[in-house]
Amino acid sequence: MSGVLVPQEQDFPRWYQDVIAKAQVAENGPVRGTMVIRPWGYAIWERLQAVIDEQIKATGASNAYFPLLIPEAFMRREAEHVEGFSPELAVVTHGGGKQLEEPAVVRPTSETIINSSFSRWISSYRDLPLKINQWANVVRWELRPRLLLRSSEFLWQEGHTAHATSEEAHEYALRILDEVYAAAMVEELAIPVFRGRKSEREKFAGADVSWSCEGMMRDGKALQMGTSHELGQNFARAFEIRFTDRGGQLRHVWQTSWGVSTRLLGAMIMVHGDDHGLRVPPRLAPTQVVVLVARAGEGVIEAARNLVEEVRHAGVRAELDDNVDVSLGRRIVDHELRGVPIRLELGPRDLAAHHVVIARRVRASKETIALRDAPREIPAMLAADQRELLAQATTFRDELTRPARSVDEAIDLVDCGFARLAWATCGADGEDRLNRAGVSVRCLVREDGSPVDDPDADGVVALVARAY
Amino acid sequence: MSGVLVPQEQDFPRWYQDVIAKAQVAENGPVRGTMVIRPWGYAIWERLQAVIDEQIKATGASNAYFPLLIPEAFMRREAEHVEGFSPELAVVTHGGGKQLEEPAVVRPTSETIINSSFSRWISSYRDLPLKINQWANVVRWELRPRLLLRSSEFLWQEGHTAHATSEEAHEYALRILDEVYAAAMVEELAIPVFRGRKSEREKFAGADVSWSCEGMMRDGKALQMGTSHELGQNFARAFEIRFTDRGGQLRHVWQTSWGVSTRLLGAMIMVHGDDHGLRVPPRLAPTQVVVLVARAGEGVIEAARNLVEEVRHAGVRAELDDNVDVSLGRRIVDHELRGVPIRLELGPRDLAAHHVVIARRVRASKETIALRDAPREIPAMLAADQRELLAQATTFRDELTRPARSVDEAIDLVDCGFARLAWATCGADGEDRLNRAGVSVRCLVREDGSPVDDPDADGVVALVARAY
Repeated sequence: MSGVLVPQEQDFPRWYQDVIAKAQVAENGPVRGTMVIRPWGYAIWERLQAVIDEQIKATGASNAYFPLLIPEAFMRREAEHVEGFSPELAVVTHGGGKQLEEPAVVRPTSETIINSSFSRWISSYRDLPLKINQWANVVRWELRPRLLLRSSEFLWQEGHTAHATSEEAHEYALRILDEVYAAAMVEELAIPVFRGRKSEREKFAGADVSWSCEGMMRDGKALQMGTSHELGQNFARAFEIRFTDRGGQLRHVWQTSWGVSTRLLGAMIMVHGDDHGLRVPPRLAPTQVVVLVARAGEGVIEAARNLVEEVRHAGVRAELDDNVDVSLGRRIVDHELRGVPIRLELGPRDLAAHHVVIARRVRASKETIALRDAPREIPAMLAADQRELLAQATTFRDELTRPARSVDEAIDLVDCGFARLAWATCGADGEDRLNRAGVSVRCLVREDGSPVDDPDADGVVALVARAY
Repeated sequence: MSGVLVPQEQDFPRWYQDVIAKAQVAENGPVRGTMVIRPWGYAIWERLQAVIDEQIKATGASNAYFPLLIPEAFMRREAEHVEGFSPELAVVTHGGGKQLEEPAVVRPTSETIINSSFSRWISSYRDLPLKINQWANVVRWELRPRLLLRSSEFLWQEGHTAHATSEEAHEYALRILDEVYAAAMVEELAIPVFRGRKSEREKFAGADVSWSCEGMMRDGKALQMGTSHELGQNFARAFEIRFTDRGGQLRHVWQTSWGVSTRLLGAMIMVHGDDHGLRVPPRLAPTQVVVLVARAGEGVIEAARNLVEEVRHAGVRAELDDNVDVSLGRRIVDHELRGVPIRLELGPRDLAAHHVVIARRVRASKETIALRDAPREIPAMLAADQRELLAQATTFRDELTRPARSVDEAIDLVDCGFARLAWATCGADGEDRLNRAGVSVRCLVREDGSPVDDPDADGVVALVARAY
């Protein structure tokens, strides 16, 4: 126990706030519920963004940018959508020193404004499928904000597509969920996720079907980490998005929308963090290896610099810490807080012995390694530690995901962890009772992991949990 | 003359609107003055962004993110700053269904909110220099909006730094101007720029000294393409940003801020575009080569596909156009409009002759080339065409940059082009007269190109122009 942070066991929410502040990930902005993402947190986000962006483009989507400000009237065109978002809207009433004729809403999501463009861009089957993604900030006024998880402004990507058929939209929505979102969560964030269908009650405002990825945090609660929606023809009707098909018939398009946000940083913190600080997955760590000059001494700084260079040559993101004015202990605590995967400590005695102390954050291990071997061995260690993080998180999640035979049993089980409850046993009535107990159906899954096309079919299981 | 666009000579502003629409670069958003950046325009922006981001990081700055919404009171802390921005502010008065206790301003720029963080982050000389950059959207209510040039919302990066000394801040502001901004403008956008110091009247609201890069558009008008400011200690005093120096003294930091925006896309269009459409610099072109199947025929589509693959193997961004349902002429017009640098046309007769027609957008040339040579020769052609664009723009600008001996002569000359007028001849009074004639001092330069430290020194020249 380092004593630097409030222990997780003692007070998880306070640990979370504490580690975000001390690892310099983020902080509250002056307007209630807004946040500042600090360089260390933002650099992790940038790496994650790069991978997700590449995968989105691999599905054939292009990036574009749509306005922040949406005419209020647009929001009202789709009935469920406006009902879902009205309580959260921020409204600009004045611009350029004057009251606006029509107030503008700060986008809480961009279905309405993007679809107003789609209605101009689409006229023929030749224009389909149209696949657009945007990286943007959105604003949803939060009564109980929590850094990175539920903030009044957050950063995300939102994808919006239009297809000629319902089947194509369905397949694409699931492709994004699997190949882009779940893949990035598992492979980059090292977080195992359940993929499933949202219940009618939990689906997105304006969607026919919503799909989500759900992760388990270290306090046993669920976090919705990404969603992908089949919008049917709801927005196509509201915004008159029609195309002439090959037979000359005018038809409404079928649509999807999907998004992941800076909330993923919150997931990373809550899944991997420990009482010493963050544990950043090596693939996302802005600094993968820090070389510390433990104490100054003949040739030590030069040797440390060489080591940094050699490690970089091996394709690793390395930095030097030669700040010997600050005690070694203090610096170690700081690098542990930030979750740098590997720490190399070099002092005069190490140099004399031709070795270096290597501490691996993920394993909490500390040993010595020959100086000349370190650069060669580190890439494999980082890869192994990435796998180890995923393995630890998977074991933790699987142990805490238990079957329940009744709604009551499910409520008991989710004091810590997830319950699996037959949807036939639960149903909308059971969901009511869960909700009254502060518990929710996170998503519907099938035993074999295949997508739930019909919630009422046999073998559909509700994944039940308390959620962020 | 293709007749697709209004000719530049006839009506440059209409040509500009026209080409942006037909090349699918951008369009107006529904809230007055806002814009949609369409995939082709956004992909160019992304490439430019990547280069600028890398160069900014090479100067030691880190990316971060600060809130969109700023308490109104923050804006008032720096007197000149609030005066400069007040007429342009968009104000959020309602959030979550209620009137806010304190209205929030949608950031027009982030000096105030970033400096409120800096005041917490900086306490010692060890925290300096602090160099932060953010990529973000900003809102400035525009009475006469113009797509990409002056829109009520635009995308940009804004850098904010804090230094221990005035000299260091001065050097860094100029380093950004030269090594990041001017370099990207010349090398990526192929636009020559004058770098100079803003006059007192033209400087940024809250700065001690402002520096800018100014480009000449094809109608002879100037566009301010990027600015870098020395803020002195103005914001440091307003936000109490102080550090303990090595001697234990408490001092205010010295600061810079600097930004470039999506306006750079407008510059690219207005510097390189012609009556057939855009001419996108090869380094920024999302598609550098389009291979057109001119007419279907035995083996033509396969050969075109192979050609795309081979060109890609040579490290070139290539795409296939096998849309033979649409006439070849129509497709050529579209690719010319978009400004794709190289077009390869392949039909049955070309294939039989083992050659391909190659059309280079920058040179308006069209010739044949042996099919097997094309992949090998294209990278050098793209590099040559990049240089050619810069050479054309430089010749154009230099011919239209002429010396003036008086304010009146300058006003005459800038009907088309820039005038160079001794600052000693012009001065604040001359600047008044210029302004009344709709003309402005774009920046102050020295004959030898070195930075103007003292505007009143000998040999300082005012670069005078009509400006966007």
